[in-house]
Amino acid sequence: MKLPFKTVALIGKYKTPEITGPLLRLAAFLSEQDVSVVVDSLTAEHLKQHDYRVMALDTMGDEVDLAIVLGGDGTMLNIARTLAPLGIPLVGVNQGRLGFLTDISLDTMQQTIAAMLGGNFVTEQRMLLATCILRDGIEVFSSLAFNEVVLHRGNISSMIEFEVRIDDEYLYLQRADGLIVATPTGSTAYALSAGGPILHPSLDLIALVPVCPHTLSNRPIVVKSESLLEILPHRISDARVHFDSHAYFDLQENDKVLVRRHPKPACLLHPVGHSYYRTLREKLLWNKTL
Amino acid sequence: MKLPFKTVALIGKYKTPEITGPLLRLAAFLSEQDVSVVVDSLTAEHLKQHDYRVMALDTMGDEVDLAIVLGGDGTMLNIARTLAPLGIPLVGVNQGRLGFLTDISLDTMQQTIAAMLGGNFVTEQRMLLATCILRDGIEVFSSLAFNEVVLHRGNISSMIEFEVRIDDEYLYLQRADGLIVATPTGSTAYALSAGGPILHPSLDLIALVPVCPHTLSNRPIVVKSESLLEILPHRISDARVHFDSHAYFDLQENDKVLVRRHPKPACLLHPVGHSYYRTLREKLLWNKTL
Amino acid sequence: MKLPFKTVALIGKYKTPEITGPLLRLAAFLSEQDVSVVVDSLTAEHLKQHDYRVMALDTMGDEVDLAIVLGGDGTMLNIARTLAPLGIPLVGVNQGRLGFLTDISLDTMQQTIAAMLGGNFVTEQRMLLATCILRDGIEVFSSLAFNEVVLHRGNISSMIEFEVRIDDEYLYLQRADGLIVATPTGSTAYALSAGGPILHPSLDLIALVPVCPHTLSNRPIVVKSESLLEILPHRISDARVHFDSHAYFDLQENDKVLVRRHPKPACLLHPVGHSYYRTLREKLLWNKTL
Amino acid sequence: MKLPFKTVALIGKYKTPEITGPLLRLAAFLSEQDVSVVVDSLTAEHLKQHDYRVMALDTMGDEVDLAIVLGGDGTMLNIARTLAPLGIPLVGVNQGRLGFLTDISLDTMQQTIAAMLGGNFVTEQRMLLATCILRDGIEVFSSLAFNEVVLHRGNISSMIEFEVRIDDEYLYLQRADGLIVATPTGSTAYALSAGGPILHPSLDLIALVPVCPHTLSNRPIVVKSESLLEILPHRISDARVHFDSHAYFDLQENDKVLVRRHPKPACLLHPVGHSYYRTLREKLLWNKTL
Repeated sequence: MKLPFKTVALIGKYKTPEITGPLLRLAAFLSEQDVSVVVDSLTAEHLKQHDYRVMALDTMGDEVDLAIVLGGDGTMLNIARTLAPLGIPLVGVNQGRLGFLTDISLDTMQQTIAAMLGGNFVTEQRMLLATCILRDGIEVFSSLAFNEVVLHRGNISSMIEFEVRIDDEYLYLQRADGLIVATPTGSTAYALSAGGPILHPSLDLIALVPVCPHTLSNRPIVVKSESLLEILPHRISDARVHFDSHAYFDLQENDKVLVRRHPKPACLLHPVGHSYYRTLREKLLWNKTL
Repeated sequence: MKLPFKTVALIGKYKTPEITGPLLRLAAFLSEQDVSVVVDSLTAEHLKQHDYRVMALDTMGDEVDLAIVLGGDGTMLNIARTLAPLGIPLVGVNQGRLGFLTDISLDTMQQTIAAMLGGNFVTEQRMLLATCILRDGIEVFSSLAFNEVVLHRGNISSMIEFEVRIDDEYLYLQRADGLIVATPTGSTAYALSAGGPILHPSLDLIALVPVCPHTLSNRPIVVKSESLLEILPHRISDARVHFDSHAYFDLQENDKVLVRRHPKPACLLHPVGHSYYRTLREKLLWNKTL
Repeated sequence: MKLPFKTVALIGKYKTPEITGPLLRLAAFLSEQDVSVVVDSLTAEHLKQHDYRVMALDTMGDEVDLAIVLGGDGTMLNIARTLAPLGIPLVGVNQGRLGFLTDISLDTMQQTIAAMLGGNFVTEQRMLLATCILRDGIEVFSSLAFNEVVLHRGNISSMIEFEVRIDDEYLYLQRADGLIVATPTGSTAYALSAGGPILHPSLDLIALVPVCPHTLSNRPIVVKSESLLEILPHRISDARVHFDSHAYFDLQENDKVLVRRHPKPACLLHPVGHSYYRTLREKLLWNKTL
Repeated sequence: MKLPFKTVALIGKYKTPEITGPLLRLAAFLSEQDVSVVVDSLTAEHLKQHDYRVMALDTMGDEVDLAIVLGGDGTMLNIARTLAPLGIPLVGVNQGRLGFLTDISLDTMQQTIAAMLGGNFVTEQRMLLATCILRDGIEVFSSLAFNEVVLHRGNISSMIEFEVRIDDEYLYLQRADGLIVATPTGSTAYALSAGGPILHPSLDLIALVPVCPHTLSNRPIVVKSESLLEILPHRISDARVHFDSHAYFDLQENDKVLVRRHPKPACLLHPVGHSYYRTLREKLLWNKTL
């Protein structure tokens, strides 16, 4: 992380015109603080008149010291997958509803970000998953995921069968709707609905959470992040691998799905006083009485 | 039920040549007992030489007093959907692995069935579900289900949203992978993998079991069998309704799925001494020690 | 039910002085409507000056046409266990927090009850459970339960082992923290926390919900209300049977717990427009967004 | 670990006479290999004639290089709590039923142990939990746990309420039957029955698994092993803390339970080829078909 943050990129939720007002206000505020403002090219399409430099996300690596994302957790996920490998730290501003990744509210955005530019922030490293799919030993697809990689039956109604190996050791042959391979960040997303545990996001771990497993004694398993997971579909008529709901790949018989931790974590910056547990309580309605 | 059983139909698992031997032996045995044997037309395709009368399943209503199915629970489900509305009672013979619906084993088939023909059997009524799908108020699809009707997202990775109404009263708006509407028979099938309860099959009840619901406090609900369920997909990009894994229908926005109990139950005959709980213990491995 | 309701009993939550104000206001209001008001003897202890007739709960059978309970669901459970066998219908008023059984709020109590006295109400029958415990074939304890009967390990840390039989048929031998035998009313109480299904309260059913079963494939089972359940503790060092949290009995080796539906249901009256599903949504926070 | 293992302690399951035969055979075999055999004092009470040195478990620290435990997982848990702080590595022999901790079978014990004495083994470190209970700021109880620390309601039927803090940060106020604080070793014990995830035993992690939580959106949480957990009972009438089913402490209002990782892990030795996943499949019946 290059301190102080001289060049800051602003990225708004795509196809969301109402984000342009707050984004331009933040841009003006940052300029006043002598910060050089960059706007990502997709966001810029929605801005009418402005003088900020426009850059494509994937070219920001050399120049941008910090990226501020305005949107929801979904937007943060998408941006983090591109910027994490470039080593650019991220700050998330939500549009009104507290997010797990977007913990700053629009209302208090300026003061909060001013304080963070002054060095008052907490740094958090979050692991990502790197997947590659082999067909006849050749890589035919690869993708990063910040939340989860999901193997799932497609449009068919019957369960799929697949073998899972961890570090070349046989774990199980399973029949299920699917299997979620989740990061700690993803443990509060789809994996939670499927019965997985909450993993503190500071941990480097991988959770394997079956979706509706046929064997009733099957349970989520948490393994070390250095594990190499191999998923081998058996007698697959219609199975798909999803990556954070942003990409997918349709499997064929004998394809091999390899999942491991991506070497570069995403770096999230939070305001001082940020509390993961408070977010958890609010999002999961633990503070409400039944 | 017309007693004694003068005309008995034999139905084997489709595309399963190994069932023909046992089926012909049973046919010969029944003929010796002065029972008139009928073979269903799809089964007959696999039988080489035989003198038995061949009938299509759906034409058996007037003449057949009893149907004996050789196969697994999947075969029984399929046959029951056709024969239940015709009022023909069913007997299930499994090919080696005890089934919930096919509780007679091939090994003891002749003695068991001889005893049943003599009147020594237990009768069980099992409810089915009748579904019709309306588009602009017009029925565009209808199907029976013996196990379950499942609304599920298709090939997309994101959850679907749908409203459920019971007897014209609003139950909930739910985001989930899907919703299983299960009969007691289906309560030990897919619904069980999704976290649903076991409903004794003698009961007339409908279970609504969400699949990976986004709202973590959501739970399976059991309602009376006379209920009219209405499922209204909201903002559906890719959702499908499945019926016992034998049929499906792709929903469009504003389609309406109506599910209610079918007026005619399936009538299953079991040998005296049949125990549902024993089957449960064996199938769910409750008698094994951890 | 004797209509019109000429004599109405008022019962307040015990040891709750703040209930006396609303209770006396309701009493005055009812007297103005020419209803004869009776106050139960425990409630009367907290009322200073009043001219209402005081009766013990269990003597109300002949004279009282309707009982109005002011308190929470716990109070309703306790009163219903006594009044249900006497055939007295019940109305529940909550003190501020909507209850499953106490669906009328203090704020609107007078108008609502006035309407109900005029015949505008919905009647609901709710089943109770009757338990008796045998030792050497002799009954040593018996109790009613409106929510649930719970067999649970006591102060020991190890699981207890017990056999369950239904209508004299063996169901399973189970090791667990305990077993909840719940009515539909109780299905949204403790049984729900233990993973049981929601049973619509109009149904007559019994749910068996294991608490932390050692066998992971164990699941809640729903059986018909006419069933006779027999629970046989095995090698019990410290096990207790609880009834709605109001009574308990410590088991000895070879005791036998028999649970069946009580012949008299509780009769609850609800205002017209009462919606069980709305209560469900509110209590389980289904209408909140995550 | 002092290699080669010159002095080996043998410990048998207590009050289990049938273990003495195999134990003496193993002792004789080890003596032939020039290993000095020591027998723990409680085990020695059951041995009739022998010449082996007898030592109390807690005095073995200076002299014993390796402890071999014959019994089940329960025995291993108990022995490990005493020997882990002394730095003595452990080997587990089961009496017939494969255990998670006792992976060597009696039948092949001699060959397997001979190979291990020759240096052919795999080492595994397993974390333990250290708990101390404060009353008015003074420690009134402390204990180690290898599987789990459990806060649980005692003989009462109502849920207990407690606050949990992690590293001095508020996590939640919870109403439940109890809370399990489990090590990865304990994740396949009681915590699994309560719905917790399986944590690979090589990991250093702590799982908090609620038992029948009143708030239905509550879920197991996994936190880093360096965390300091503080459990503060609220309005407790009858609550007890259990440690691996070997010790317990009855809480009073305002007691404070502090749980953290014990600085010394237990060191388990496994034969080469030991597979945790195979044990998992066998114990959880994943290799059986439904």
